[in-house]
Amino acid sequence: MDKKLTINDIAKMSGVAKSTVSRYLNGGSVRPSTGQKIKKIIEENNYEPNVFARLKAKESRVIGLTVPGFDSVTTPRLVEVIVEYLKKNDYTPLIMHTGNKIAEEIRSIERLKNMNVDGIMVLATGSTKEYEEVVEKLQIPILFLGQRFPGANSIINDDYNAGYKIGEYIGKRDFEEVYLLWVSKEDPAVGGERQRGVIDGLFSCGKEPTEVIETSFFYEDAVHNVEKLTEKLKKPAALICATDRIAQGAYKVLYEKEIAIPDEVSVVGFGDYETGELMRPPLTTVKFDWRNWGESSAETMLQMIQQKPVSVIQVNPYEFIERKSVR
Amino acid sequence: MDKKLTINDIAKMSGVAKSTVSRYLNGGSVRPSTGQKIKKIIEENNYEPNVFARLKAKESRVIGLTVPGFDSVTTPRLVEVIVEYLKKNDYTPLIMHTGNKIAEEIRSIERLKNMNVDGIMVLATGSTKEYEEVVEKLQIPILFLGQRFPGANSIINDDYNAGYKIGEYIGKRDFEEVYLLWVSKEDPAVGGERQRGVIDGLFSCGKEPTEVIETSFFYEDAVHNVEKLTEKLKKPAALICATDRIAQGAYKVLYEKEIAIPDEVSVVGFGDYETGELMRPPLTTVKFDWRNWGESSAETMLQMIQQKPVSVIQVNPYEFIERKSVR
Repeated sequence: MDKKLTINDIAKMSGVAKSTVSRYLNGGSVRPSTGQKIKKIIEENNYEPNVFARLKAKESRVIGLTVPGFDSVTTPRLVEVIVEYLKKNDYTPLIMHTGNKIAEEIRSIERLKNMNVDGIMVLATGSTKEYEEVVEKLQIPILFLGQRFPGANSIINDDYNAGYKIGEYIGKRDFEEVYLLWVSKEDPAVGGERQRGVIDGLFSCGKEPTEVIETSFFYEDAVHNVEKLTEKLKKPAALICATDRIAQGAYKVLYEKEIAIPDEVSVVGFGDYETGELMRPPLTTVKFDWRNWGESSAETMLQMIQQKPVSVIQVNPYEFIERKSVR
Repeated sequence: MDKKLTINDIAKMSGVAKSTVSRYLNGGSVRPSTGQKIKKIIEENNYEPNVFARLKAKESRVIGLTVPGFDSVTTPRLVEVIVEYLKKNDYTPLIMHTGNKIAEEIRSIERLKNMNVDGIMVLATGSTKEYEEVVEKLQIPILFLGQRFPGANSIINDDYNAGYKIGEYIGKRDFEEVYLLWVSKEDPAVGGERQRGVIDGLFSCGKEPTEVIETSFFYEDAVHNVEKLTEKLKKPAALICATDRIAQGAYKVLYEKEIAIPDEVSVVGFGDYETGELMRPPLTTVKFDWRNWGESSAETMLQMIQQKPVSVIQVNPYEFIERKSVR
């Protein structure tokens, strides 16, 4: 008999759902009559469960989750949504912290695999050849969030178009100077795609950035860089900030130097932190629907564990939030 | 020969540090000559490592960390500091999320223990009899953060005195009404101690709260409760908020209803979030030194793993940050 018999075939032959066969193989409860039917077909056909099915037979109902760090607004709230969704589905998340380092991300993935997790979700920082090889050999479902990972499943934000929208919004207005306060291209999504979108958006209005100033994701670095910048900028100027956190750093400096927002210096960010509407003037920004992002990511992970079909790349949409920080 | 020979004795007899003996016993690298010296003494004295030393012999260099949730400003930044400190000392943190539920906290502790972690740090939510029994039987070091846990080591914030300071600060001023926007007493530290401090501080000035309004740690609930409150309060009023997050909710409502802060309604919080200085007017609050808290907690955990003496209760001090949100 054909050794390549699949769970799908068994399902068809026994007239039950694929998930029922899978549950039976994993020792879950099925109706006794159904169980007997499946058993008979398996025995008659010398069915050999494949590696993945065997792995699943000892499923841990634990899902690994690696995060670059919690010193951000986006990560903690995204983790909250994912954790809540996984728990509701009787999975326990096990969280590892990668310190925003690819080497640690790889090590965490290997460690989680050795702990026999059913799948791994990665709030990703980037990729390397070595990393891609590790992922390719992994044998358990892995899903990347926030970065497009070559050859693996990813759920990313629509960074390019969000950037384009902001670039265009600023480009249509009259400013003496337009500065980008941006993170390094080592972060492909924010540093790469989002910035490319902003620059293309400005360009579509015949404008270009006066300067792209490199800063980190940290508030303190933004404060430092904007302090230096205020010594030279020509008003009215616009500061396009890679994240709301960076925009907050800009606000702090502009408040202290009593530079009027938005009349002298306009500011925009990305992220729509809860506090954006509390800033004075309220911050114009872009919102990525993080609740939808977290839930659809967790659901995709569950579908992957159940060997259901999922799209290799999913894109989380953005929403433009116009407030009062641009003249 | 005396069977009760300790690592300490071996260290003295071989003239090396206790940590070197420990490293040798755990299969770590020591100088060959030192190793021979220790080996000789152990053999001559029929040294039997005790249960704990044997546990340590298979040390995982993994430390479990349970958190109630990341939907807060304090938890993510505290976790960052702890993780950084542990990693610097070659420990890998494994993080579990308890959803602010004691039952899940207990389950996470048991799970982490079964994963053979060297110690467990708990960002704690409270305690029960059952919980205390689990902790008592644990056999590996456990440290509670933020809540005093009966019979176990804890590092807590100086919530009572911080509350007292704020109560006194508001009590000394003239308000028609003073409202507390507070979390439930189910949280013993913030709901209990901190609130008791505020009320005692007000009382020391001959004042008492007009009403204690129960709210959650969430921004949305604060917004909802302050909206209802603004319909009845007599100005000038003061709102003492259990956390800065709650104070942010108050600001949002007061902005929307165009009620002047601080002249009509004064607001204070606890927590000193980064954004407090960006609010207009900047928020008067209390800061707990979370960096020191995180670092000393992680260091205490390491000391416990190394069986060094540590204080059962350690208190993290507060600092009053006077800004412009109180008339």
